[in-house]
Amino acid sequence: MQNINLKGGVTLPAESGQEAVIKDLIKKWGCNALRDSDGTTLSDEILEMDTAIYSTICLVRAEQMWPRKHPSHLPQVFLLSKAQVALNQTLTFDLMQEWSKDKYRINDDENSFQWWEVIDRTTGEKLDCDRWVYSEGIVAVKNPILYHEYTVTFLVYQIWDSTAMYNAITNGWTGDKVMCVDPFVPEVYTHLMNYFDEWLDLHPHTDVVRLTTLAFGFMLIRNNKQECIIRDWVSYCEAVSTTALQLFEEANGYRLSAEVFVQGGQYADMNLPPTKEMLDWMSFIEDFSIKYGKDLVRKIHKAGKQAAMFWGDHWIGAEPFGERFNELGIDIIIGAAEDGNALRRVSDVPLKMVKELRFYPYFFPDVFKDDINPVKESMINWVKIRRAMMRQPVDRIGWGGYLSLANKFPDFIEHISVITEEFKSLYDKSNNEGSWSTGIRVGVLNCWGKLRSWMVQTSPTEKFYHGREDVMDFVGTNINEALAGLPVDVGFFSFDEILQNPDRLNDFDVIINDGVQGSAWSGGEYWVNPIIVTALRKWVYNGGGFIGVAQPSAYPVCDKIFQLSDILGVDVELGQTIQISPATHNVVDKHFITADIKDKFKVSNEQSFVFCKDSNADVLDVREEHIHLACNSVGNGRSVYLSSLPYNSENARLLYRSILWVSKKEAFINSWFSSNINIDCAAWLNAGYYLVANIDAQQQEAMIYKSANQTEMVSLNPYESKWFKI
Amino acid sequence: MQNINLKGGVTLPAESGQEAVIKDLIKKWGCNALRDSDGTTLSDEILEMDTAIYSTICLVRAEQMWPRKHPSHLPQVFLLSKAQVALNQTLTFDLMQEWSKDKYRINDDENSFQWWEVIDRTTGEKLDCDRWVYSEGIVAVKNPILYHEYTVTFLVYQIWDSTAMYNAITNGWTGDKVMCVDPFVPEVYTHLMNYFDEWLDLHPHTDVVRLTTLAFGFMLIRNNKQECIIRDWVSYCEAVSTTALQLFEEANGYRLSAEVFVQGGQYADMNLPPTKEMLDWMSFIEDFSIKYGKDLVRKIHKAGKQAAMFWGDHWIGAEPFGERFNELGIDIIIGAAEDGNALRRVSDVPLKMVKELRFYPYFFPDVFKDDINPVKESMINWVKIRRAMMRQPVDRIGWGGYLSLANKFPDFIEHISVITEEFKSLYDKSNNEGSWSTGIRVGVLNCWGKLRSWMVQTSPTEKFYHGREDVMDFVGTNINEALAGLPVDVGFFSFDEILQNPDRLNDFDVIINDGVQGSAWSGGEYWVNPIIVTALRKWVYNGGGFIGVAQPSAYPVCDKIFQLSDILGVDVELGQTIQISPATHNVVDKHFITADIKDKFKVSNEQSFVFCKDSNADVLDVREEHIHLACNSVGNGRSVYLSSLPYNSENARLLYRSILWVSKKEAFINSWFSSNINIDCAAWLNAGYYLVANIDAQQQEAMIYKSANQTEMVSLNPYESKWFKI
Repeated sequence: MQNINLKGGVTLPAESGQEAVIKDLIKKWGCNALRDSDGTTLSDEILEMDTAIYSTICLVRAEQMWPRKHPSHLPQVFLLSKAQVALNQTLTFDLMQEWSKDKYRINDDENSFQWWEVIDRTTGEKLDCDRWVYSEGIVAVKNPILYHEYTVTFLVYQIWDSTAMYNAITNGWTGDKVMCVDPFVPEVYTHLMNYFDEWLDLHPHTDVVRLTTLAFGFMLIRNNKQECIIRDWVSYCEAVSTTALQLFEEANGYRLSAEVFVQGGQYADMNLPPTKEMLDWMSFIEDFSIKYGKDLVRKIHKAGKQAAMFWGDHWIGAEPFGERFNELGIDIIIGAAEDGNALRRVSDVPLKMVKELRFYPYFFPDVFKDDINPVKESMINWVKIRRAMMRQPVDRIGWGGYLSLANKFPDFIEHISVITEEFKSLYDKSNNEGSWSTGIRVGVLNCWGKLRSWMVQTSPTEKFYHGREDVMDFVGTNINEALAGLPVDVGFFSFDEILQNPDRLNDFDVIINDGVQGSAWSGGEYWVNPIIVTALRKWVYNGGGFIGVAQPSAYPVCDKIFQLSDILGVDVELGQTIQISPATHNVVDKHFITADIKDKFKVSNEQSFVFCKDSNADVLDVREEHIHLACNSVGNGRSVYLSSLPYNSENARLLYRSILWVSKKEAFINSWFSSNINIDCAAWLNAGYYLVANIDAQQQEAMIYKSANQTEMVSLNPYESKWFKI
Repeated sequence: MQNINLKGGVTLPAESGQEAVIKDLIKKWGCNALRDSDGTTLSDEILEMDTAIYSTICLVRAEQMWPRKHPSHLPQVFLLSKAQVALNQTLTFDLMQEWSKDKYRINDDENSFQWWEVIDRTTGEKLDCDRWVYSEGIVAVKNPILYHEYTVTFLVYQIWDSTAMYNAITNGWTGDKVMCVDPFVPEVYTHLMNYFDEWLDLHPHTDVVRLTTLAFGFMLIRNNKQECIIRDWVSYCEAVSTTALQLFEEANGYRLSAEVFVQGGQYADMNLPPTKEMLDWMSFIEDFSIKYGKDLVRKIHKAGKQAAMFWGDHWIGAEPFGERFNELGIDIIIGAAEDGNALRRVSDVPLKMVKELRFYPYFFPDVFKDDINPVKESMINWVKIRRAMMRQPVDRIGWGGYLSLANKFPDFIEHISVITEEFKSLYDKSNNEGSWSTGIRVGVLNCWGKLRSWMVQTSPTEKFYHGREDVMDFVGTNINEALAGLPVDVGFFSFDEILQNPDRLNDFDVIINDGVQGSAWSGGEYWVNPIIVTALRKWVYNGGGFIGVAQPSAYPVCDKIFQLSDILGVDVELGQTIQISPATHNVVDKHFITADIKDKFKVSNEQSFVFCKDSNADVLDVREEHIHLACNSVGNGRSVYLSSLPYNSENARLLYRSILWVSKKEAFINSWFSSNINIDCAAWLNAGYYLVANIDAQQQEAMIYKSANQTEMVSLNPYESKWFKI
């Protein structure tokens, strides 16, 4: 391992029996690391190849004897029963009726009930515990008020690990149910540490320990049909256990109620602004995860190995953009990426470490089968990833799953060869540096800020879309994906940062607020905090550029939904001012912002219900009186409003031009700019190269503007990229 | 007059110089009453024709000397300035800059300022009066907080009557500005009564005194471009004056703030749930209007004449569906009608009186000109009105405007002959009784209840539609129009009625709640009142049928927006539970409710964001996962959810079938039912006739089901109606 420079290389999932294929691909793809996957083993021959060896471990689910011997040491979760209407003198809840009995077992230990809650949802009242009884899986509510709705919140043990269960259902994995353990239990913690020591001893060939999920599982709650009906990739709700709740109470001086987690069925959805209690809980989990992660990394280093984290799994409390991530000492971050946004989630981590991408699709039977074209799925991902990589590259790339499976698809093997070549020339020519940027500092403002940089920012549209369960397809607005490939400097910041120091705004030239009313992305109640709106107004009046998308700055008060409608020039009509006429539209047909829009840009709903509040605003897109794009000037600042921005190359360009316009830096339109929205262009001035890449399935041509006076015509085959000397 | 039976006749707008035309039309159209219009006079020859004479008067704007002599006796209104951002040490508002100087004059009388308000809209704080000064049209705010938004609410006198101003702008009326007076001022009241006595003396030929606007003007607020930017046909905001505010304070023991009226720019929009203070104000206005109206009617009767009200004008405080309307003693109600909903607003008035419809279009130059086809506009109205008239007829019909103008359009004269003939045969054959009904009692539930029966129920879609300023086109959902022509018994009731007596629900077989979240139509906060939801649940469980449209029972709490989602089986996703999967759809292709839908029913937005909350619900229309129509069974009751219901004949049928289904009265589908949605059918069992009418511009055929075993094929020419013996 000491001899292997991981940077610039590729990680291959290896598997006993595939030795010849591996040797071939080491050359063909430039692999310098081999990894195992869940359910595969590496033969001695593989272990002795001249590559680094990654070995995967998820410690909380590695050893299966302990959870079987200690049934009260399993992770837990609060489940909220479906609300039931009281029709009789007794209302009974068969608690497990609606949930997966394969995954959950009621925690009816003595110390569990103190956390359970029966709530009259018609009044919001929590019932005293003498008003309900539990027996053998049934809660009976005594003398409920007729026709009121009641719910029961109760604790269950998780008797099947979420990821293992997913693989059993989706990928047909067999064998005993994999269980996790609750690391908060002191004996468990000791057991895990001992086991990890042993594991390290048993893996002498391992160069890199690849930690998957750190300590807690994904929130993937399954119903009695085994369907995953609640899903939150960054939830802190599955870190719950009676031990953890008790420790929280000791540490924070107050007790968390079950409602903090289930929130009447919202389950502290990441799309909603967090409660004070949830933030305390997150901080509590951070304390634990950092300690636990540090203990593991210390052992890995002591064993002479490197520590990698797989950030496609669950790392709550130790997330890479969190304040305390640096304490862990992780050497390699591996992120799963389906698009440019996910790439930036890895490449933008503000620490010096080896950054590696894990590509989709996994070599798994759900995609590698006759009726699916894995090349097509991979290419859709790659052109998005490459676009973002041209801004901020990573150090390595890799794949996961079963090599034996992928090897049955020779087209796919060839296709990956193209990706690995393109990656390596990008890595080499770019010196692994970011490409030329306008230097415009773009800040994305929401409730989460830095912690959830480049995080999925879902909109209600997402609920009405059925994609693959394990892949985050974005539908509706996807500002992040558009941003991921633009030559601007992107940061994420939170409302709390403004409250702490309004001058925080001066770190940005452009601020984006994108989300629906009441969401964590838009900001909810923060928008009626005078400090927030005053600071933002001042910042715009003094030259800032504000871009609002969907329902920015939204909180209904009197005739306003958008609290910054004075800045945006528009507001949304949700029923509060139907009889008040909109201000007269000033429709502008030709504008810098829309210069690359052929007809109408793609929106997610033709009816935005957005209207002009101020005739000063220029309306750039209006469809049957519904405004989709408007821009405005206020004081020395500017604003742009977009009703939605699903990602495509036209909309990415629209966002770029919006950024240039609101920051009054339109002149950059002649710098390293492609006349064709399907061809991206990035320049490395120090290295003296520029790269153009065709994201389209057709041949494309573009005029590349190096500067206003220096242009070059390029022609590219489908999906092709080409390097030029400056 | 004594000899003339007004019932069954037609009112013609007469005009000196048109004597021959009048005589002709008296025969042709069956006119038995002649009326003057604003700006017309009736010659002696006309006055002596063998018809009743209607004379129009709007007393508050009849005499123009008084307002000119007493500039402080004009009606007033609160205006809210546009919000301004404080950028300096002084923030100044040029109050009249944004408003029509032709219509308003600042009331800067000594006693006015006590009602003015300067509000920091960023904090909601009302500024003490030492923090601002007024001088010559300018309010200066001292030391405002920088970047906060401020507004000024101030009183203006209305120096041009809204209706007169509308006619000057739209119909080119010339002459001096017509002004109104404030009847709350005691001297004005005395003056008006004296003037009315004189007026009655001067109109010996008048048989019917047609009162237009009673005491207060429409809310039609115009900006500095003379555009009407705030419009509310039933607003109580223009009854404001310093005298009235003072009297209110004396009567109610507390002072109303200006904010009660302007509501931060919402101007107490009828589409929003009313505040307690606004309800008190409405009650105060009712006390005045009833007294004032009674005084006028008493004088009319004393003069040996009949009193008619024109309900196309403004009758706040004395509205026909109000509790105290009967006290007035009105003999004839004349309602302007553009559609079936407006017809029912007249024909359903629960008092014995002569009910007369005034048809659109007025014989005014805005429609009677070369490029507009008045026949087309009239026919569109007529088929809708006729449809509703077949359920609940009126006693008379009539027109308004300038006969000389209409007479230039011979096609139009012929077209009206057809309407008058159809009306008369309907009046005669029906014995002026309602036709056969299923007897199903349908209650429309909203914040206004009976008071605003058959009232415009606007939705946000309305804001994005530009129709004629004086005509209420409905866009978006229009349940009322669909209901107006169905053989069911329609009532309107309010949430307060349920709070007073939950058994009120038992007066209905079917309850409809239709509106967007937070509106007066949906109900807003009432939906988190346990009494309301409990009563409705109980009623449904015991066999009631609930129909929810748009965002029924909507108020966001936890994971619910629709508080009756347990009844409806669906809820709407506005961002609160994006990560929670909808329940599995149970899509039903064939259902009683949708049997007459050819393809997809018309909706106002393809994306409803409505999802299944309960797998028990049957989904009857889903478009890319957005649910538009679902039905559910709960206890002994049933529910139907509709995402929207713009009026057309297919949707009217859809509503009828929904009503039959939720009330479990599907068997009525064979009673006086037309197989063709474009042909309506109504039967008068006592009279022994039934009527079929084609609402379509094409010839249509239908099978008429008198009963399951008795059918008849009919064929009708475009727009034709035909009578048959049973």
